[in-house]
Amino acid sequence: LTVSLHPYLLTMTINKNRILSLCPGASSTGATPSEEMNGTGNLMDFLDEPFPDVGTYEDFHTIDWLREKSRDTDRHRKISIKSKESYWELIKSLLDAWSGWVVMLLIGMLTGTLAGVIDLAVDWMTDLKEGVCLSALYYSREQCCWTSNETTFDDRDKCPQWQKWAELMTGHSEGPGAYVLNYFLYVLWALLFSFLAVSLVRVFAPYACGSGIPEIKTILSGFIIRGYLGKWTLLIKTVTLVLAVSSGLSLGKEGPLVHVACCCGNLFCSLFSKYSKNEGKRREVLSAAAAAGVSVAFGAPIGGVLFSLEEVSYYFPLKTLWRSFFAALVAAFTLRAINPFGNSRLVLFYVEYHTPWYMAELVPFILLGVFGGLWGTLFIRGNIAWCRRRKTTLLGKYPVLEVIVITGITAVLAFPNPYTRRSTSELISELFNDCGALESSQLCDYVNNPNMSRPVDDIPDRPAGPGVYSALWQLALALIFKIVITIFTFGMKIPSGLFIPSMAVGAIAGRIVGIAVEQMAYHHHDWIIFKNWCRPGADCVTPGLYAMVGAAACLGGVTRMTVSLVVIMFELTGGLEYIVPLMAAAVTSKWVADAFGKEGIYESHIQLNGYPYLDVRDEFTHRTLATDVMRPRRSEPPLAVLTQDSTTVEDVETLIKDTDYNGFPVVVSRESERLIGFVQRRELTVAIKTARQKQDGVVSSSVVYFTEDNPQVAEACDPQPLKLRRILNLSPFTVTDHTPMETVVDIFRKLGLRQCLVTRSGRLLGIITKKDVLRHMAQMMNQDPESIMFN
Amino acid sequence: LTVSLHPYLLTMTINKNRILSLCPGASSTGATPSEEMNGTGNLMDFLDEPFPDVGTYEDFHTIDWLREKSRDTDRHRKISIKSKESYWELIKSLLDAWSGWVVMLLIGMLTGTLAGVIDLAVDWMTDLKEGVCLSALYYSREQCCWTSNETTFDDRDKCPQWQKWAELMTGHSEGPGAYVLNYFLYVLWALLFSFLAVSLVRVFAPYACGSGIPEIKTILSGFIIRGYLGKWTLLIKTVTLVLAVSSGLSLGKEGPLVHVACCCGNLFCSLFSKYSKNEGKRREVLSAAAAAGVSVAFGAPIGGVLFSLEEVSYYFPLKTLWRSFFAALVAAFTLRAINPFGNSRLVLFYVEYHTPWYMAELVPFILLGVFGGLWGTLFIRGNIAWCRRRKTTLLGKYPVLEVIVITGITAVLAFPNPYTRRSTSELISELFNDCGALESSQLCDYVNNPNMSRPVDDIPDRPAGPGVYSALWQLALALIFKIVITIFTFGMKIPSGLFIPSMAVGAIAGRIVGIAVEQMAYHHHDWIIFKNWCRPGADCVTPGLYAMVGAAACLGGVTRMTVSLVVIMFELTGGLEYIVPLMAAAVTSKWVADAFGKEGIYESHIQLNGYPYLDVRDEFTHRTLATDVMRPRRSEPPLAVLTQDSTTVEDVETLIKDTDYNGFPVVVSRESERLIGFVQRRELTVAIKTARQKQDGVVSSSVVYFTEDNPQVAEACDPQPLKLRRILNLSPFTVTDHTPMETVVDIFRKLGLRQCLVTRSGRLLGIITKKDVLRHMAQMMNQDPESIMFN
Repeated sequence: LTVSLHPYLLTMTINKNRILSLCPGASSTGATPSEEMNGTGNLMDFLDEPFPDVGTYEDFHTIDWLREKSRDTDRHRKISIKSKESYWELIKSLLDAWSGWVVMLLIGMLTGTLAGVIDLAVDWMTDLKEGVCLSALYYSREQCCWTSNETTFDDRDKCPQWQKWAELMTGHSEGPGAYVLNYFLYVLWALLFSFLAVSLVRVFAPYACGSGIPEIKTILSGFIIRGYLGKWTLLIKTVTLVLAVSSGLSLGKEGPLVHVACCCGNLFCSLFSKYSKNEGKRREVLSAAAAAGVSVAFGAPIGGVLFSLEEVSYYFPLKTLWRSFFAALVAAFTLRAINPFGNSRLVLFYVEYHTPWYMAELVPFILLGVFGGLWGTLFIRGNIAWCRRRKTTLLGKYPVLEVIVITGITAVLAFPNPYTRRSTSELISELFNDCGALESSQLCDYVNNPNMSRPVDDIPDRPAGPGVYSALWQLALALIFKIVITIFTFGMKIPSGLFIPSMAVGAIAGRIVGIAVEQMAYHHHDWIIFKNWCRPGADCVTPGLYAMVGAAACLGGVTRMTVSLVVIMFELTGGLEYIVPLMAAAVTSKWVADAFGKEGIYESHIQLNGYPYLDVRDEFTHRTLATDVMRPRRSEPPLAVLTQDSTTVEDVETLIKDTDYNGFPVVVSRESERLIGFVQRRELTVAIKTARQKQDGVVSSSVVYFTEDNPQVAEACDPQPLKLRRILNLSPFTVTDHTPMETVVDIFRKLGLRQCLVTRSGRLLGIITKKDVLRHMAQMMNQDPESIMFN
Repeated sequence: LTVSLHPYLLTMTINKNRILSLCPGASSTGATPSEEMNGTGNLMDFLDEPFPDVGTYEDFHTIDWLREKSRDTDRHRKISIKSKESYWELIKSLLDAWSGWVVMLLIGMLTGTLAGVIDLAVDWMTDLKEGVCLSALYYSREQCCWTSNETTFDDRDKCPQWQKWAELMTGHSEGPGAYVLNYFLYVLWALLFSFLAVSLVRVFAPYACGSGIPEIKTILSGFIIRGYLGKWTLLIKTVTLVLAVSSGLSLGKEGPLVHVACCCGNLFCSLFSKYSKNEGKRREVLSAAAAAGVSVAFGAPIGGVLFSLEEVSYYFPLKTLWRSFFAALVAAFTLRAINPFGNSRLVLFYVEYHTPWYMAELVPFILLGVFGGLWGTLFIRGNIAWCRRRKTTLLGKYPVLEVIVITGITAVLAFPNPYTRRSTSELISELFNDCGALESSQLCDYVNNPNMSRPVDDIPDRPAGPGVYSALWQLALALIFKIVITIFTFGMKIPSGLFIPSMAVGAIAGRIVGIAVEQMAYHHHDWIIFKNWCRPGADCVTPGLYAMVGAAACLGGVTRMTVSLVVIMFELTGGLEYIVPLMAAAVTSKWVADAFGKEGIYESHIQLNGYPYLDVRDEFTHRTLATDVMRPRRSEPPLAVLTQDSTTVEDVETLIKDTDYNGFPVVVSRESERLIGFVQRRELTVAIKTARQKQDGVVSSSVVYFTEDNPQVAEACDPQPLKLRRILNLSPFTVTDHTPMETVVDIFRKLGLRQCLVTRSGRLLGIITKKDVLRHMAQMMNQDPESIMFN
């Protein structure tokens, strides 16, 4: 590996194009990110801060968690003092204290509503590709057939009110002509939807593409990407998500829903200055919003909170835990009130199994875990390679064309196979289902014993009929198709989640394995492994459970979720019964995938895009010291510092002009190099500008003083001094040059620092920024541990 | 408030008697804590460390998290280098990596087994107070009656095999004589059990008393209490827990089960040097063990993990989350395999309700929340006042007598009332239950409409019969009794949890409210509030749900748990349906209780006992600076420091003898006061002792050098110098004197520091220890915020 070490920068600026290149060609038209500034504007700060502009951060910079926290404490202190002055102030302070709950309530309600609307719209538009409801154009197929009185139960797949396009246009519902026409219209609708989606993203909200989770992780860790959670992004992402999912592409709505929820969170933050003016507090709200997003995506409020805790959030205090839970519940209940699936369940995948699992089944479950791990590795490697190619070659220049081509291929290949033609979530739902007595699907085409009369739910294992065998073939083809196409789909310039496609891959594989085990158990129940638990006439294997375990394994392999994955699955089934199979598969899948590479898909995308994200999970185990990482290095020019009482205004201005560091250490004198504080570039610029305008006698040759005492000025001859102690941070964070880097990394992570000064016996030696830490970690990760030990 | 400021101490030593005073009179006999040293012995360290003894901590001291972490990283690094040398080493390194999971598996299995055994034993011994099973003496009443063939369903309350004492002794089961005899024997058994319990605790394991959660919180935050989690404590706590619960005292087994689980965790830690030799890693295991403890206490694995995260743990990395979950699940499944309740459920309280709740019911639910908050406040204040009295007056000298007296009072008052005579968990179980058609209890004595034939589960609201009214009176008396007696019971010198008594108080209050609402709805269903949801003949109010909501509210008021409380309750009911009532009650209860005092019962006990616990939840919002807190203060003598090259061995020895600080800063010279490092007292003592014994020429006048270069010694005249740079910590943690205390508090919390040096422009000014921080926080908490602002 070669990590090129550029002349060092104190700034945390990431090349803006690098991020916009996620959605190339988008920045040239339509809304620029600056139009989407979200509440941290200059106007509001002006009222509060001694200098305008001070206290906000620039785009693509990192926030200082400690500073944000201390600003919030100051705010809190002011309010609690004021609250004693009058009843009105007391009420205001109570309202302020309650605003967090109000924000959570609003987020929950809006997220739930949006999720419901998205579900309804997707349902309708997915069916629109195949046909239309004559009784009411806005009915999806299911609604159309259920409201129609003419439908009997046996006949429910054919309802007269619902007509396929060919039937409507030509009057024939069967025959090759109708098939070709339906096929053609299916592809056409798909292309139309995806073209609309990609165009809207391109024109109105470049940030609305992708799943959004890598970026949200980065934002929550303290990075600023203005407009990423803006109103435009919210609107466009919601609309294009519906279009993208409806187009039949191999993508899901779960990841983007988290992004949508975070946009809602950001929107409501701007209502309360407590959150809009404090980047730290804002991130607490966003963590809760992410929980609400997962809560509605899966109907799993506890799973959502744990997902936010485990996967997305960076700083997650207990207060946030409680509020996240509240937001997740409100969202779930709002969604339930909308009831988009018409079954008063929160989820499409709700399942109930009737038979327990047996110890021996752990073997296929663990095999599914291995499969999930391998799929995760394959997907991550393939997808990252493809995304890298997209970034570096001409491919990236034609996002619209790419989407159109992939949609075309997907639609053309998907239509002939009934398992890929329908929406992916319906597919998963069918695969999870246990075959009841009334099930009419091809997958449940078993040979029934006519003499048998048993209760509806307790059906013994039966031999598979021809329908099952043909279903197996189609599922196998669908599996290969999904595996390949998903790699190319994720990362295109439309909203795209990968929970659903990953789960689909796992569910298909799981169902195939499940049917195989079931048939083996039926035909060979005298084998020693089946003898103990699978007597003839018993219902001992549930293929639907295998599908569920497979889905969990594949999702785990791709995202490396653990607890939240199992809890989400637990909330889907509602019973502790099946936690052990799910856990066995999730653990195996994680271990197998980890053996090939530690990063999940989100971390891989963060790395690919070069976001400054300091993962809490990576353990830094190398034996380097702060002195190896700090700048300036030996060959470099000395650190740009200010002295406490011998720098002139002109010197400072030159320094500001010549460098782009975020701040400058202040020392007693250049000789002693004893550190007294740190001054932010922004505050310095503003202070000097203000002084030049408003303060008489401040000229270029005025000396800038950072000392406490009033400087002794010879009255007439010298120009008026400029006292800037008030903008000096007297408690900069320092470590000694001998501090092990693992401690430094820990400090950066836990305290959320931007930079840290390095001293030896009180003398300033250098500086370490978050970027230096990240660069060093990347460097170490790619070296042989032994060479580090002995170099 | 007057916080007396003693001459400052660097040590974190807490008066040992203060902790032992929890169980006074115990330390004089039997095993002393030192006999229970658990694995961090000197022998093992000797093999690894340059000096024996270095690296372990003394009893009642605080650990240094950063140091423990860096020691673990070193260990890890060594193993990963070795693993490349041979296959054997590779296998060893893999075993090491897996040891965490093995420990979790063992903890889960042992905790589950112990919980099962405790449940069975408690069941049997509780029934022993009333009678005995003739067919098999070791059967509890339920087992006895169910195994008996002569029992019919209607007659199940009377089974011939089970005989009350009076019947067995005198042959008469009815009449005043039998009643008095039963009464007498009930009290006698109770006294016997509690006497045994308190004696065992007193003689063998003083630490086995109480709930253990306050101490475990303190230990997990980095404090060392040797023997608190030792083998003796494990054994004695398990046995005495059974005795204490069986004696009928108003206490539960949930808190002590967490302590028992942590003892198991500590036990298995000693099997692996990875955990036994690293106090930081050990605490990760203990966090997971706490989760396993709650998991078996309630049959709620997810709730257990969240309880550990929210309530108990201090440092909870994601890896621990995953492992805790594993341990909690293993424990739950082990318990299920033992199946102590005979219903293949994990819990005694499993409930299923048949009717939904209505919006209007939120009013009584919120009122129950208010009741829970008030009860929490009353309990905490009353209990703390009583415990303080116990610590300061003669009362504390007679723990055995206290237990006997309280048991006597409890038993005498409990016997006449059927709701207090039975075990508290049975009572809660009955109160939670919905009245089905077959229910025979007094609480379900409703007037049935003879004409009605409805399915068993869907019974409309009916008028209450005389049984319900008399039950209401008995419940009201039981409520008052429980409220009063629990305040005096918690904190006695026997194992005692307060989950069950708190839940009982809430469940009684809830059931009373529930029945009241139900009867009101039945008799006044034309009232406007009932009109919409409670037509005649409908089953609209479930009193059992009110009991459950009340239990959650009271438990929340006492412990201030939030998310984990709701999740535990969710796992008990198994449906999202009832989360909103539970949350409404839990939130109300927390807010009401918080209005009277921020601390829950555990934090109050931590404060009462003066443990050095830095709560992550307390927000420090005062505007003090590091300079206000650091020692030495202005009037005090200067800081005890060493210089890098001008202190003699004799000086050092004098310093060690005269002070009891945990360590000393090392400066360049007394004049410049520039800090170069920090040296631990322990390491210094050992190094000098070793040098005196083994190194020639080291005498009292030898100069101790902490510098890097070899000192220039005039060869003949001076004694041999002693070079101690290797024990010098070159990266001591420093802050400047202007650092706001809120930042300092944050740093102490997040990095788990023991002490922090204070500098100004590189010069050492003073030191802040964890104890200084705690003392300062206590001081500030009790001052008027305004006076801080302007002083």
